[in-house]
Amino acid sequence: MPMRLDAGSPTFARDFAGLLAAKREVSEDVDLAVKAIIEDVIARGDAALVDYTRRFDRLELDAAGLKVTEAEIEAAWARCDPDAIVALRTARDRIEAYHARQKPSDERFTDTLGVELGHRWTAVEAAGLYVPGGTASYPSSVLMNAVPARVAGVPRIVMVVPSPDGVLNPLVLAAARVAGVSEIYRVGGAQAIAALAYGTDTIAPVAKIVGPGNAYVAAAKRRVFGQVGIDMIAGPSEVVVVADCHANPDWIAADLLAQAEHDAAAQSILITDSAELADSVAEAVERRLSTLPRAAIAGASWRDFGAILLTPSLAQAVPLIDRLAPEHLELECEDAEALAGQIRNAGSIFLGSHTPEAIGDYVGGPNHVLPTARSARFSSGLGVLDFMKRTSILKCDPESLRQLGPAAITLARSEGLEAHARSIAVRLNLG
Amino acid sequence: MPMRLDAGSPTFARDFAGLLAAKREVSEDVDLAVKAIIEDVIARGDAALVDYTRRFDRLELDAAGLKVTEAEIEAAWARCDPDAIVALRTARDRIEAYHARQKPSDERFTDTLGVELGHRWTAVEAAGLYVPGGTASYPSSVLMNAVPARVAGVPRIVMVVPSPDGVLNPLVLAAARVAGVSEIYRVGGAQAIAALAYGTDTIAPVAKIVGPGNAYVAAAKRRVFGQVGIDMIAGPSEVVVVADCHANPDWIAADLLAQAEHDAAAQSILITDSAELADSVAEAVERRLSTLPRAAIAGASWRDFGAILLTPSLAQAVPLIDRLAPEHLELECEDAEALAGQIRNAGSIFLGSHTPEAIGDYVGGPNHVLPTARSARFSSGLGVLDFMKRTSILKCDPESLRQLGPAAITLARSEGLEAHARSIAVRLNLG
Repeated sequence: MPMRLDAGSPTFARDFAGLLAAKREVSEDVDLAVKAIIEDVIARGDAALVDYTRRFDRLELDAAGLKVTEAEIEAAWARCDPDAIVALRTARDRIEAYHARQKPSDERFTDTLGVELGHRWTAVEAAGLYVPGGTASYPSSVLMNAVPARVAGVPRIVMVVPSPDGVLNPLVLAAARVAGVSEIYRVGGAQAIAALAYGTDTIAPVAKIVGPGNAYVAAAKRRVFGQVGIDMIAGPSEVVVVADCHANPDWIAADLLAQAEHDAAAQSILITDSAELADSVAEAVERRLSTLPRAAIAGASWRDFGAILLTPSLAQAVPLIDRLAPEHLELECEDAEALAGQIRNAGSIFLGSHTPEAIGDYVGGPNHVLPTARSARFSSGLGVLDFMKRTSILKCDPESLRQLGPAAITLARSEGLEAHARSIAVRLNLG
Repeated sequence: MPMRLDAGSPTFARDFAGLLAAKREVSEDVDLAVKAIIEDVIARGDAALVDYTRRFDRLELDAAGLKVTEAEIEAAWARCDPDAIVALRTARDRIEAYHARQKPSDERFTDTLGVELGHRWTAVEAAGLYVPGGTASYPSSVLMNAVPARVAGVPRIVMVVPSPDGVLNPLVLAAARVAGVSEIYRVGGAQAIAALAYGTDTIAPVAKIVGPGNAYVAAAKRRVFGQVGIDMIAGPSEVVVVADCHANPDWIAADLLAQAEHDAAAQSILITDSAELADSVAEAVERRLSTLPRAAIAGASWRDFGAILLTPSLAQAVPLIDRLAPEHLELECEDAEALAGQIRNAGSIFLGSHTPEAIGDYVGGPNHVLPTARSARFSSGLGVLDFMKRTSILKCDPESLRQLGPAAITLARSEGLEAHARSIAVRLNLG
């Protein structure tokens, strides 16, 4: 049974704080191991990649074998369910159309002093995409990471994916082709992150690394941050469903379980103002759970991290939602739109009863790489801007420099930076 | 004498790679000390802040003394040079006007299937601004960090600044008032970062931490990343000046020295197609250096990390600039505008001979918090977007869900996520 909290209870504040603080992930202390792997890849390059691949993926190859060939991609493509490829293309087109609207504009303007100002956006020169191997190897994630990079105009998109015992998911390779990935290497773990950050003879370095991974991958990303850009550190997925008495309990239960089946550490939370709905959803979850292939995982997630929160009104749910800052927020209630407008912290909002979160995982258009573990308080889902950077532009002429210069000189001197002051003064014949 | 490289030399490729790889900072291994400090602040809160402040800042205070009072700010204000306050206000207004144009727009649209899509931007609920103590305590940096947060609409802006031996720079407090900082605490180091990230009884936690600091502050920011958002990890400052034979060598020398005076680890690089200009700039640097108050620092920086690169044409400088990815790029040459358009990697560009970089440090309008150490390959200067986050919005109706659902169900099943498929199917009476 999941935790059940009533906002009317005297212990609610404490219980809710407990829910917020619950650790859903054991953070393995792999940092020293990761440090050694990164240093080894810097020192030995491809030879280190080959060694770690033998050790961790039980795969014997030489440096030339790291790259997945066109022929292999072709062969994988031929093995895929044609319906799945059609669906990948549908998803790709919708993700592309949604993200194309995120492309930022350059700007130039002249202010009243005659100073020309502006900024210019450029794509990073190369992006690396980490794709986990084994069961967490999701073709949809390949699209969600690679398509925004392509929309941004990144000329080189490099995918790394471990192939434990030599096995690669053919649909992952197909997704890479559909998404426009430029190069694929069969290498994973901290060694793959190190190769992307520092380069080897086979793998040229990139400027930005994105994509989810295990504790080693996360620790490696944290370590190489600065040498390259990284996206967020992904944690277990989560959903908050807000529903009133009009909602369909069976649909809500299905949505809670879709989240829960990801991972035993996933979290599904229902917030409602209807005790009756709360009861019927709880029942529906148990009923639906029994027929799920991943019942063990979904059941553990629901039992250990699931929660049902009862609030006197849905308006009173708003501050709770902002503190939870959920990755996914479904609003299945009257006037969902108005409620959405009051929320500050959420990675993504799904409006109305016909928008199950799963539609957004695949074909909605918005990105499914979203801030987890309350990081929607300060970060956004993956997007085109993550693959671009902004250069500011400034141009003074003699007259505008004459007008602006004295204030700058005053501030430079107040900071004890005389050479700063003089670089302006020398142009104004002031010294 | 700084390094001098000629692109025509047979060893140029190797020498340039050496310039790129030169370590300008000794990265102190302070991570374990920082980990202990953060854990102590989490465990003991204000008491830990009081202890570390006694130990590191030689300042005896109780928890109530952590907060800088309105009366203290008022007293500091009265001690400031009135010209400096006027200059701070000029800077604030120009920074604010420039950054106001960065405010992003929300979007909603309906696609051809009838799916409603969009996104909404919201400000983080609270931002923390770290300000170093002592000589690196720059009022201009307070403006550059706080004004974008205010423009973003952040309701609570918290400044932390160490006061070694109880001393605070009055102009830093004045800048905080001018910029609209909400709260100021006299605490620094890793303990201040921990307090901002996790909160104490006195200091409520924030969602995002920005601002430069020493090795302890940088290591602490890296550690708390995920719990809160952070800005980039700042390194020593740098400038690349591109100049042709028409440039004024004395002005160029002044700009190279303005950068060099920051820090012995700062880096100033001249790229020119004129050997004659190279010679006259080198001479002018020596001449101007002799009269600088910070000659020791600027001289060390120029000697150890300065460089003059001679290229056959300025067009051939473009790939070198992109590899250097300079924080500041001054283009003092004919057709600077066209050259600027070819550069992919630069934090900021200063066009023409009347735009010394120092004008951008104070009153230009663009931010002076810019990517260092080649990170302009993947990151941007500080801006309004750093204090906001985007929530994606998706809304299907029964008809659009019917059209999109099957592709999502196909992909969910191909990924083995049956509960995902069912959360869609149940709404389409498919199961």
